[in-house]
Amino acid sequence: MTPFQPGFSGSLFDRADPLRGDAEALSALLQHPQARLLQLQGFDPALTSEGALVWHGLQGLTEADTAALILLGLLQGVPHFVALQQHSAEAPLYRTPRTMEVLSLLGPQDMATYGTARSLIDWHGRHRFCGKCGAATLLQRAGWGRRCVACGSEHFPRVDPVVIMLAEHGDRALLGRHASWPAGRYSALAGFLEPGETVEEAVARELFEEAGVRASRVRYVTSQAWPFPAQLMLACIAEVTDDTLNIATDELEDAIWLSRAEVRAALAGDPVARFLLPPVYAVAHSLLQHWAWPDEAKGAAA
Amino acid sequence: MTPFQPGFSGSLFDRADPLRGDAEALSALLQHPQARLLQLQGFDPALTSEGALVWHGLQGLTEADTAALILLGLLQGVPHFVALQQHSAEAPLYRTPRTMEVLSLLGPQDMATYGTARSLIDWHGRHRFCGKCGAATLLQRAGWGRRCVACGSEHFPRVDPVVIMLAEHGDRALLGRHASWPAGRYSALAGFLEPGETVEEAVARELFEEAGVRASRVRYVTSQAWPFPAQLMLACIAEVTDDTLNIATDELEDAIWLSRAEVRAALAGDPVARFLLPPVYAVAHSLLQHWAWPDEAKGAAA
Repeated sequence: MTPFQPGFSGSLFDRADPLRGDAEALSALLQHPQARLLQLQGFDPALTSEGALVWHGLQGLTEADTAALILLGLLQGVPHFVALQQHSAEAPLYRTPRTMEVLSLLGPQDMATYGTARSLIDWHGRHRFCGKCGAATLLQRAGWGRRCVACGSEHFPRVDPVVIMLAEHGDRALLGRHASWPAGRYSALAGFLEPGETVEEAVARELFEEAGVRASRVRYVTSQAWPFPAQLMLACIAEVTDDTLNIATDELEDAIWLSRAEVRAALAGDPVARFLLPPVYAVAHSLLQHWAWPDEAKGAAA
Repeated sequence: MTPFQPGFSGSLFDRADPLRGDAEALSALLQHPQARLLQLQGFDPALTSEGALVWHGLQGLTEADTAALILLGLLQGVPHFVALQQHSAEAPLYRTPRTMEVLSLLGPQDMATYGTARSLIDWHGRHRFCGKCGAATLLQRAGWGRRCVACGSEHFPRVDPVVIMLAEHGDRALLGRHASWPAGRYSALAGFLEPGETVEEAVARELFEEAGVRASRVRYVTSQAWPFPAQLMLACIAEVTDDTLNIATDELEDAIWLSRAEVRAALAGDPVARFLLPPVYAVAHSLLQHWAWPDEAKGAAA
């Protein structure tokens, strides 16, 4: 674990992939006397008074209940599950103010466990039918897949790669804001990577589309699983040779160049910092730390 | 462009995202006198005698034909399209021997254009029905999305992140082979990244699952769009402190440690090299180049 480790990472769970498709092994896990089930409140986690996840035993579950469990993994040999939640699936499960409040209380490993659970629950809700033939699909592989009842196609949990980046010009970094954000908040620009693109190409395209700057060199910094609903955030820094901005106002409300000193002040909690940071559990926060203190970032990774 | 640039990258196309959802702009592109349509043979590209992609005009297309076009992008202002191909979608479009033969002839930019086209065609074929409600979906946004005719859900082209990596122990790198590969071929280990994982965590998990080695530090090297059907290959090097192997024989037929000299010999075309390389258009090839000549890789990126 490094000082700049992103939120939702650092899980100690063994994902136990080989056991997921093994009916006998899975049955044994369900019989395990210490097997644990994650308690949710709606789609948010229940918390103990110390801000930890709440787990129960599997006692009292019906056969139908256990057939709808997702195996999150093993912790010191003890299986941990979450139950598939019914939801309308009209839209993916985004954050609510309540979700953000709860996230601010969770420790890093609990956050990683919860994030995985939430991404999987959402994926099941949005893949109840087969994209190839339109028939119903059923949960299989301990929640790590669905199978079509008609054509037999297998579907696997989806992860959508997103690039998130700072443009860098000399000693300044480019941050932007959306109109819907809290007043004063600025963060790294971001966008979905498309078929046919490398990470580096997607970074360059998004920076040009959103801010009108041309990346001359892109370096990868770190990554994060973002569970609203299931993004892989690929955090990068892109050098630009011309700092002239041309902001796509349908995407961004504003974008500004900030000096390293200004970013450090915000990260250090200066009450008169020039902007409000993204939340600590967002990879944009980790990316700003890496950019603000590159030597410490190198030391941490060594 | 660097000497170690991965295959399927380096496209000069402007993807023109803002035009995709703009009916008027799209109509103008379809009327463009130089508008170009990619010629395919099945799902493989047709080639000129010089090994270039073949393009035709849009003359003679019906309204139904133009409604099924995918806008690949603009090249010097000229729109380039590919037509949605009907296919059974029983399985994703994997490579065939014919595909591989054609790929070996294409230049890098044509390869990138074709890869994007192929990923999109395959995605449409496997998403003809809505995962949320099971109703039919229709192409929209110039081929960069589908919309459900019943619930209105929008679906966007999928990219699946895959980690591909060399374990590194001192001056040696770990390569493995699958039983189905040509005799003597070894390549980097790889696997799909799962919900809830960072790139670095997925690399560590896959190396332990497949080869029994524990990564102590992971560094990102480069990335590639792999269009069979639509992977984002995230290429990394992972340092390990213990080189003892425990090979998952259901996944790998064999895995071996190779010295830098042995990898360089293979890359230099030595006829008695210890192993056969992955194809030049595979990111594993670029990853081996980066690992074999780290100083050149750094110089190239600067």
